[in-house]
Amino acid sequence: MNLNTLGGHACFGGTVSFHEHHSSACDGEMRFAVYTPPQAADGPVPVLYYLAGLTCTEETFMIKGGAQRLAAEHGLMLVAPDTSPRDANIPGEDDDWDFGTGAGFYVDATEEPWSRHYGMYSYVTRELPSVVEENFPAGPDARGVFGHSMGGHGALVCALKNPDFFRSVSAFAPVSAPTRVPWGEKAFSGYLGGDREAWKAYDASELVREHPFPDGRNILVDQGLSDQFLEEQLLPEALEEACAESGQPLTLNRREGYDHSYYAISTFMEEHIRHHSAALNRA
Amino acid sequence: MNLNTLGGHACFGGTVSFHEHHSSACDGEMRFAVYTPPQAADGPVPVLYYLAGLTCTEETFMIKGGAQRLAAEHGLMLVAPDTSPRDANIPGEDDDWDFGTGAGFYVDATEEPWSRHYGMYSYVTRELPSVVEENFPAGPDARGVFGHSMGGHGALVCALKNPDFFRSVSAFAPVSAPTRVPWGEKAFSGYLGGDREAWKAYDASELVREHPFPDGRNILVDQGLSDQFLEEQLLPEALEEACAESGQPLTLNRREGYDHSYYAISTFMEEHIRHHSAALNRA
Repeated sequence: MNLNTLGGHACFGGTVSFHEHHSSACDGEMRFAVYTPPQAADGPVPVLYYLAGLTCTEETFMIKGGAQRLAAEHGLMLVAPDTSPRDANIPGEDDDWDFGTGAGFYVDATEEPWSRHYGMYSYVTRELPSVVEENFPAGPDARGVFGHSMGGHGALVCALKNPDFFRSVSAFAPVSAPTRVPWGEKAFSGYLGGDREAWKAYDASELVREHPFPDGRNILVDQGLSDQFLEEQLLPEALEEACAESGQPLTLNRREGYDHSYYAISTFMEEHIRHHSAALNRA
Repeated sequence: MNLNTLGGHACFGGTVSFHEHHSSACDGEMRFAVYTPPQAADGPVPVLYYLAGLTCTEETFMIKGGAQRLAAEHGLMLVAPDTSPRDANIPGEDDDWDFGTGAGFYVDATEEPWSRHYGMYSYVTRELPSVVEENFPAGPDARGVFGHSMGGHGALVCALKNPDFFRSVSAFAPVSAPTRVPWGEKAFSGYLGGDREAWKAYDASELVREHPFPDGRNILVDQGLSDQFLEEQLLPEALEEACAESGQPLTLNRREGYDHSYYAISTFMEEHIRHHSAALNRA
């Protein structure tokens, strides 16, 4: 596996670095960012994956999230992939901000012309962790996942479908029930086709009803109450209801005055890093 | 004075907001960002001005600096102006990244065609503080200034020329001796003309030799040793030498492995905020 390192920056005693490689899941070049904390000099550390939202890239989280300070404190590696393939040469891929480029929705597309390249679910749950664990001092048995908006949906789905692989999960303003909102309907129609039953395999509020996170592990969600997308796209109450029904422990913090931006995300980053650290750093 | 508020975001218990107004110093619209900390609800708070570097805008510091958390902790308002006028319709203003738009260099231009709009020194030392103190809960007697690169130069110059107005100063990777480096020579030639003696009024290493910061107040500077601009453009040793000659206390932290990016700046932000807080929050 040929990993091309694009650049690196010292940061809080560790290093932020950017990488590109050929992805078989996406049949093309994919980029991701890594924060390697200072503790990694002494041996493998747990890895926390961050999935970003619509229009973001592998850089967004490292620039705006304010997580490196906390990752250095807790000895966590941070890994942030891009949000879709780029330059896949699919007709229309750049037409919309909420579909195609920058909007892979963390599913494995089954529909033409997307199915060849848009294998983001396989990419973030299998290929990317393999690449990271081969190339970085990443402990193979301690992985967490979190994300924002579309990436919050992605984090919940990836964890609920792979509870042995991801030990901890949290989300900022996730698309909690994508099968029931415009962003999700558009993306799933395009990537997965017209069978709405098939969509449920990528809907956290559906998944958690059947298969809660094992061992009573808690899900942490932060949601701003001044979020412009709250009522139409995010539906945290759908996740809350499904968790209540299935006995899934959920901490859903409703934050008065906070919006959908990284100004909100960075405010609550510390609580999320502590949540993951408690799960990933336990003996 | 008509202040147009462009947007606001809750952040660490306070608010990041963006504003536009007509500037007389720049004869046109200027933008700035403010972080109002939670303590401002109870009365005026000290204000710390941040001057950004080449190509940056009023948004850069709020997005990348990671300072809001610390400002909320210390009860400091943060104010970040844009780095130049925009759309001044001066021929060639957008031709170079290191001159004109995004590169005002915090001087009052005396040369045509720049003198009408490029009054950045007067803007950041007089007009902007007036606007802030009229429109925000900003204490009028406790101001600090810091900045990065071109803005580190700006911060040092603004403070050294106005030591009663700015009580504290610090800089990340400042252009320490602009009269002796290519960036400064280009900017000062264009904005100030060919008389190199006149340039010295905007060179921190010249200013501090004649007029150190009164009352033995310390200057704090952080400089990465892997900074790509260190040798050609920044010359921290010139500032160090001048401070030593004039008895100006200087803490110059040379940081192994760190570069010119906000990944470095954010790492050392906490020490800078503490430096300013100690000066601005004293009884």
